[in-house]
Amino acid sequence: MAAMAKALPVVAEREHPLPSIGFLGLGIMGTAMARNLVKAGYDVTVWNRTTSKCDALVSEGAKRGASPMQTAGACDITFAMLADPAGAIEVACGEDGAVKGLGPGKGYVDVSTVDGDTSKAIYKAVQAKGAEFLEAPVSGSKKPAEDGTLIFLTAGDKSLYDKVVPFLDVMGKSRFYLGEVGNGAAMKLVVNMIMGSMMASFSEGLVLGKKVGLDPATIVEVVGQGAIAAPMFAMKGPSMVKGSYPPAFPLKHQQKDLRLALAMAEDVAQPTPVAASVNDIYKRAKAEGLGDQDFSAIIEAYLLDPKGLNH
Amino acid sequence: MAAMAKALPVVAEREHPLPSIGFLGLGIMGTAMARNLVKAGYDVTVWNRTTSKCDALVSEGAKRGASPMQTAGACDITFAMLADPAGAIEVACGEDGAVKGLGPGKGYVDVSTVDGDTSKAIYKAVQAKGAEFLEAPVSGSKKPAEDGTLIFLTAGDKSLYDKVVPFLDVMGKSRFYLGEVGNGAAMKLVVNMIMGSMMASFSEGLVLGKKVGLDPATIVEVVGQGAIAAPMFAMKGPSMVKGSYPPAFPLKHQQKDLRLALAMAEDVAQPTPVAASVNDIYKRAKAEGLGDQDFSAIIEAYLLDPKGLNH
Amino acid sequence: MAAMAKALPVVAEREHPLPSIGFLGLGIMGTAMARNLVKAGYDVTVWNRTTSKCDALVSEGAKRGASPMQTAGACDITFAMLADPAGAIEVACGEDGAVKGLGPGKGYVDVSTVDGDTSKAIYKAVQAKGAEFLEAPVSGSKKPAEDGTLIFLTAGDKSLYDKVVPFLDVMGKSRFYLGEVGNGAAMKLVVNMIMGSMMASFSEGLVLGKKVGLDPATIVEVVGQGAIAAPMFAMKGPSMVKGSYPPAFPLKHQQKDLRLALAMAEDVAQPTPVAASVNDIYKRAKAEGLGDQDFSAIIEAYLLDPKGLNH
Amino acid sequence: MAAMAKALPVVAEREHPLPSIGFLGLGIMGTAMARNLVKAGYDVTVWNRTTSKCDALVSEGAKRGASPMQTAGACDITFAMLADPAGAIEVACGEDGAVKGLGPGKGYVDVSTVDGDTSKAIYKAVQAKGAEFLEAPVSGSKKPAEDGTLIFLTAGDKSLYDKVVPFLDVMGKSRFYLGEVGNGAAMKLVVNMIMGSMMASFSEGLVLGKKVGLDPATIVEVVGQGAIAAPMFAMKGPSMVKGSYPPAFPLKHQQKDLRLALAMAEDVAQPTPVAASVNDIYKRAKAEGLGDQDFSAIIEAYLLDPKGLNH
Repeated sequence: MAAMAKALPVVAEREHPLPSIGFLGLGIMGTAMARNLVKAGYDVTVWNRTTSKCDALVSEGAKRGASPMQTAGACDITFAMLADPAGAIEVACGEDGAVKGLGPGKGYVDVSTVDGDTSKAIYKAVQAKGAEFLEAPVSGSKKPAEDGTLIFLTAGDKSLYDKVVPFLDVMGKSRFYLGEVGNGAAMKLVVNMIMGSMMASFSEGLVLGKKVGLDPATIVEVVGQGAIAAPMFAMKGPSMVKGSYPPAFPLKHQQKDLRLALAMAEDVAQPTPVAASVNDIYKRAKAEGLGDQDFSAIIEAYLLDPKGLNH
Repeated sequence: MAAMAKALPVVAEREHPLPSIGFLGLGIMGTAMARNLVKAGYDVTVWNRTTSKCDALVSEGAKRGASPMQTAGACDITFAMLADPAGAIEVACGEDGAVKGLGPGKGYVDVSTVDGDTSKAIYKAVQAKGAEFLEAPVSGSKKPAEDGTLIFLTAGDKSLYDKVVPFLDVMGKSRFYLGEVGNGAAMKLVVNMIMGSMMASFSEGLVLGKKVGLDPATIVEVVGQGAIAAPMFAMKGPSMVKGSYPPAFPLKHQQKDLRLALAMAEDVAQPTPVAASVNDIYKRAKAEGLGDQDFSAIIEAYLLDPKGLNH
Repeated sequence: MAAMAKALPVVAEREHPLPSIGFLGLGIMGTAMARNLVKAGYDVTVWNRTTSKCDALVSEGAKRGASPMQTAGACDITFAMLADPAGAIEVACGEDGAVKGLGPGKGYVDVSTVDGDTSKAIYKAVQAKGAEFLEAPVSGSKKPAEDGTLIFLTAGDKSLYDKVVPFLDVMGKSRFYLGEVGNGAAMKLVVNMIMGSMMASFSEGLVLGKKVGLDPATIVEVVGQGAIAAPMFAMKGPSMVKGSYPPAFPLKHQQKDLRLALAMAEDVAQPTPVAASVNDIYKRAKAEGLGDQDFSAIIEAYLLDPKGLNH
Repeated sequence: MAAMAKALPVVAEREHPLPSIGFLGLGIMGTAMARNLVKAGYDVTVWNRTTSKCDALVSEGAKRGASPMQTAGACDITFAMLADPAGAIEVACGEDGAVKGLGPGKGYVDVSTVDGDTSKAIYKAVQAKGAEFLEAPVSGSKKPAEDGTLIFLTAGDKSLYDKVVPFLDVMGKSRFYLGEVGNGAAMKLVVNMIMGSMMASFSEGLVLGKKVGLDPATIVEVVGQGAIAAPMFAMKGPSMVKGSYPPAFPLKHQQKDLRLALAMAEDVAQPTPVAASVNDIYKRAKAEGLGDQDFSAIIEAYLLDPKGLNH
């Protein structure tokens, strides 16, 4: 396992023709990532189940793919960004799945956050076609995706990793190659497990502080100056205080990642009492109908006064 | 409640004579804080139960106080930094306590981390003598204390706050005046509750990652680049990976703060399931004999392999 | 420590005159217990802060006490049943407290559920007057109190224990003498901690079952036939299914006992993660306004549908 | 859903010939259950992967099956008792699986504890062969299996339920027909979730009591006399106090059931904070190597003194 500093992406003046890029899945994340590839001047073909989501990117210079299979068949390297394991499997291995379009010399890079088993299943299918595979889940949500400051947690075929470095560097600010397939998924789940717990703890502090008479905005400020200051608190805190949770990373996805992390802990019999407790709060929030809001809406699961923190 | 940006401390060239300062309690924190006052050229009298702990500061220019009472009697403003509520009460209100030396025109600033009830009890005793009181618990441990980059969470007599600003600015990088006595203690407990939870979650992630085959040092690196990067993780992570926990903030104190925060939540019937779960892990760590190590030793309570994370 | 089987109470035909009994505190429990003593033919003097609560018992044959002090002064042995540590301390050691009426040859039996420190403080005050003390918290709520089937968990002066056996046997079905003062309180807290956790787990099962399509009444029936059948489930289950929680043991008291048990666990650094989690749910229930209902109302804290389990 | 009182099994004097019975899976539970059928005079064919486990029953009168397929083919009704979902699927639907031996007029009764999805998958396979299916997980472990006092939680084809009543009544003391397939599995998981939580809470109480100076054996006695008395505490408590955990229901199976119950709760977004916390303790116990001991060994996960409760 080794971390590598970000190399400056150099797109211009190459000896070899630029590889063509496919991009499957244009949700919040996928759209922003594909847009950065298009902006960087790459030859990008996009596909999404709801095809209207391709329109903007096509108007910006992307080609329109007919299906995952057709897209993967037409491109040298295909990226996929799906919402969950089921989506990732379907787009890779389904009826018109990308795998059917793959073959020797081609590469498939799954940047979705999935569990290791899903990743390994896709790897096997890709390998069977003689193509290369890289799992490359990202750390970072909407804003870093737009700004090209994501962090890639990759694992799988090292030679494909080497080939996609320039693309990763357009979409992200750093990248890690972590060895065998499954390690990228595992790293992502570990990071998101910590993140989900931090957000719950932060919420707990804000709500408790409010209840004993402190100003939540001041708590955000105090937290922002000490050893526990984190960009996430600075970014989400002020809107949480206002009871606003515009979805950058939907709560239901955070809960899914906690669930997958807990399943991973189950497999190795590792106690994770805090994550177990945290997951239950996210479950409560989901049951209260907050699943589609930003995961910072977890604070609502602590508020017994329905008027929220700012009353 | 209002936060104020740090004013640059200007010690030189004053019209009025400098107030004399007392400092009671020379543990890890108190020693570093008092030293910064001495270095800044103030007239500082120090006292500690174990008197030998005064020697170094005396050799650096401080005066030696005979007791809390004598110190408070001899100085204009007296700071106190004790380990827990019992210590804070004893030094302020005990037999030879500081309160006995106070009177009109004098000020008492308790920078210990205690619960609101303790703070209010001391306030009452100080008021009864016609003196002013400020509770001013700090956010930050050994290193910020040494570097003069603590954060002061103050509450109580505003006029005393205004008088001590120059001293707070020598010892800290920012300060908040939070209104009535008890709010400083409450803010400190809220912040330390979040901190304790974050450290437990971080530990949980490191141990789980290790168990599924990731390199803990790489996890620390990945965490350090994203939305959850926090100075605490960067500072403690590398030594935690090595199984080293030199005490900056002892685990037993973190557990005490969690206990006090949970008691505060009890009083207002606020659910805090994550902190409750986190406190239990710290309790386990204490029971395993880790109380005197740094609170980052909480990771040991997750390690079932006695050889630690780095094996 | 030794458990003793219930001796049949024999009230009639004694050589010595019957000792006179005081009873302080006539809540749900105290009233039922005092009534059983009156019914058994004892000479009972009752006192309650709200004096109207004495009326019924006085009409049934009890004498009316003027204050705790007067009652304890007039009786050989005085029982006290208060709601919480503060009440127990006040009635024993306050202005007109029972202790002032005690002296050599008299006994004071506190049957309240309090923490060990409270019990020890009262013991000390009683001892200082030359009287004897027994802490004797009871296991069992309204119904067992009425039926005379409580369980007494006693500790303190053995000779007083021997003297009160006949009275304990009128009010209860079994009794344990557990040694030094504090052990009765500790045993009570341990038992109530298990009870609170069981009720929360049972509620969790009923609500989860309901949500996946099972009939909660059938769950109660299934539970009642296996290894986990407990009188509490049989007694409370059917009314919980109907959303009815007539207060036998108020939820706020169960939460208080969990809090005291957790504080006891803190003192000895014993991990109790389940009780910590359980306490938090009771706290949530209290915050939702369920404190005065029966503790079985904890199930409401799990119900996200405000219509309850029976819809 | 309806509960039915146990009808006395009447095996003798029937108009129709007795149906022949197959029994697949002779672990602790299966052996005891099959033995009761043999003892009752039924025509029983047994099969187990490790064939030597059949020897005792064959010597007592059972026939030896060659494979699940052959056994199901030779018998009118086949029972299966496997350790986990994977085993249940394999024996029913594998290469030589029972389903291959089924056909119209035959019935397959799975008495294993599995999740609803597994149960439904087997149901579908059995239906496809024109045979009938009943899921019938049992509540009760080794002793009730031996004594014929199990509780059957059945769901599926009602006509098969009616046919197997006499056999269920030989093996159990009561039975519930709960409607559609999946409800039996769900009820079993709910009951076992409550059971696992109760055992953890009981352990927590015993260990805490011990640590504050109470005699654990006395705690068991006190618990046994009040509202929370449960057969499980009476049965397991005394051996737990001695540090002995002879496996009736292995800890790893209890943990599996908690995991399945939590997954069920996830599916319906039902908060289950207590079960989440409890599961984590069982996970810790498993990680400490206690998986094959009785689930009452969970108490060991609370003991920080390796010498156990009885030192």
